[in-house]
Amino acid sequence: MSAVPAYFDRIRIVLSRTSHPANIGAAARAMKTMGLRRLVLVSPNLMATPQTPEPPVFRPERAGEFVLPEESFALASGAADVLERAQVVADVAEAVADTVLACALTSRRRELSAPLHTPRRLTPELLAAAQAGQEVALVFGNETFGLSIDEVRCCNRLLTINGNPDYFSLNLAQAVQVVCYELFSQTDADLRRLQPDAAPATAEQVAGMVAHLEETLHEMDFFRRRNAERMMRRLHVLFQRAQPESEDIDLLRGIFRTVQQRTGTDK
Amino acid sequence: MSAVPAYFDRIRIVLSRTSHPANIGAAARAMKTMGLRRLVLVSPNLMATPQTPEPPVFRPERAGEFVLPEESFALASGAADVLERAQVVADVAEAVADTVLACALTSRRRELSAPLHTPRRLTPELLAAAQAGQEVALVFGNETFGLSIDEVRCCNRLLTINGNPDYFSLNLAQAVQVVCYELFSQTDADLRRLQPDAAPATAEQVAGMVAHLEETLHEMDFFRRRNAERMMRRLHVLFQRAQPESEDIDLLRGIFRTVQQRTGTDK
Repeated sequence: MSAVPAYFDRIRIVLSRTSHPANIGAAARAMKTMGLRRLVLVSPNLMATPQTPEPPVFRPERAGEFVLPEESFALASGAADVLERAQVVADVAEAVADTVLACALTSRRRELSAPLHTPRRLTPELLAAAQAGQEVALVFGNETFGLSIDEVRCCNRLLTINGNPDYFSLNLAQAVQVVCYELFSQTDADLRRLQPDAAPATAEQVAGMVAHLEETLHEMDFFRRRNAERMMRRLHVLFQRAQPESEDIDLLRGIFRTVQQRTGTDK
Repeated sequence: MSAVPAYFDRIRIVLSRTSHPANIGAAARAMKTMGLRRLVLVSPNLMATPQTPEPPVFRPERAGEFVLPEESFALASGAADVLERAQVVADVAEAVADTVLACALTSRRRELSAPLHTPRRLTPELLAAAQAGQEVALVFGNETFGLSIDEVRCCNRLLTINGNPDYFSLNLAQAVQVVCYELFSQTDADLRRLQPDAAPATAEQVAGMVAHLEETLHEMDFFRRRNAERMMRRLHVLFQRAQPESEDIDLLRGIFRTVQQRTGTDK
């Protein structure tokens, strides 16, 4: 049973010109929760916040020296390693240079010449590429302004998250969460179903239990003017749908036996 | 691109014993973003926060008078109408009583006898039910403790969001977001092939039938040295799995009544 597939290491999340330090931390957490670990920050444009009154200023010529503020690490909460390993670069072109698929997250309202895809529909192509050894990027823009036209043009896929056309309020970390959830959900890892250890009853056991029930109902004189055959058929279908375990059969037949004893002396 | 289908009004999000006022607001926003508008709060258990130093106390006998604090509305940000229309009740049983499908969100680590579903796999059934006019609920528990065993038992489906087994950090509002995203994302699909049962029993009807069974067994003095609680729990799960129709409930209760009559004179 696979957990996070190894090829997930070829999928990177790119955040361009992010404003709020907390969003970077929250995005890291959202990523790691779905098994993604590669974060690339493009020209972080951090604003002053109560917890980060003097945010670090990004300098393109010293991109590699950029250090995220404590607030980002606080929100990352256990995904600090994603932040520590994050690459910091000056522009989106550099962030996606070695990728074969770079998807720009955009809202629907833009006028763009390329077709929009949804995460549901685009993900198979993304996963297939990663599985084939190719690098893939999902690119998110600034919280308020999104990606610039130039940034979008560095990408070869347009991605939008559909929702309520009358009200759509998804913040950056939530958008990252939804996209990462979609990616993970289409891996084999998500397709496991946890079946409990059970000893399911056989068809014969179920039929035997239903026959015992019928016998008990007859002894109680339950059917009288009712349609016994129709009722028993319904009960059989009901108990089949219940997918009883052996233990359920024993329990039910114990009940029937007790009823038979209790009602036996009425005759 | 689909808009929001009318049948989405039959899908409710239930938040039980939520601690943080902000999470309720964030959940409302997450819902509305994906076209869902029905929020039910069960016994809100609000903690004091910097913005809400004196949170309102929920009183079961005055459930309808409960008023959310300003902090919830601040986070709802445009989804205030969802909060205003939210129903407030005392327990999960009440919140799901008239539903045909009630899905308990749970983490994988629980020991439970019912199979776990993923949102991807369960959603078609949920949407088909709603389309057929049936009420559906998704039930989320407290941020720290999740749902209690008793709360889970009020539900007839178990739902888990899969992710990185080594690190999984999804807060309440994000879990709501992901589930609502999944629901909306499948609305393009052709759901006609999933025909739900004609008149499925509600959670309340099933619980009532099981209670009737328990009463009948007690009158028969069935339990004696047996573990009544464990047995009734097993029977409840069995009957939930059976997805009974209203007609099944009537039939079973007719059987119980007859048993009660037949065994009544033994005392």
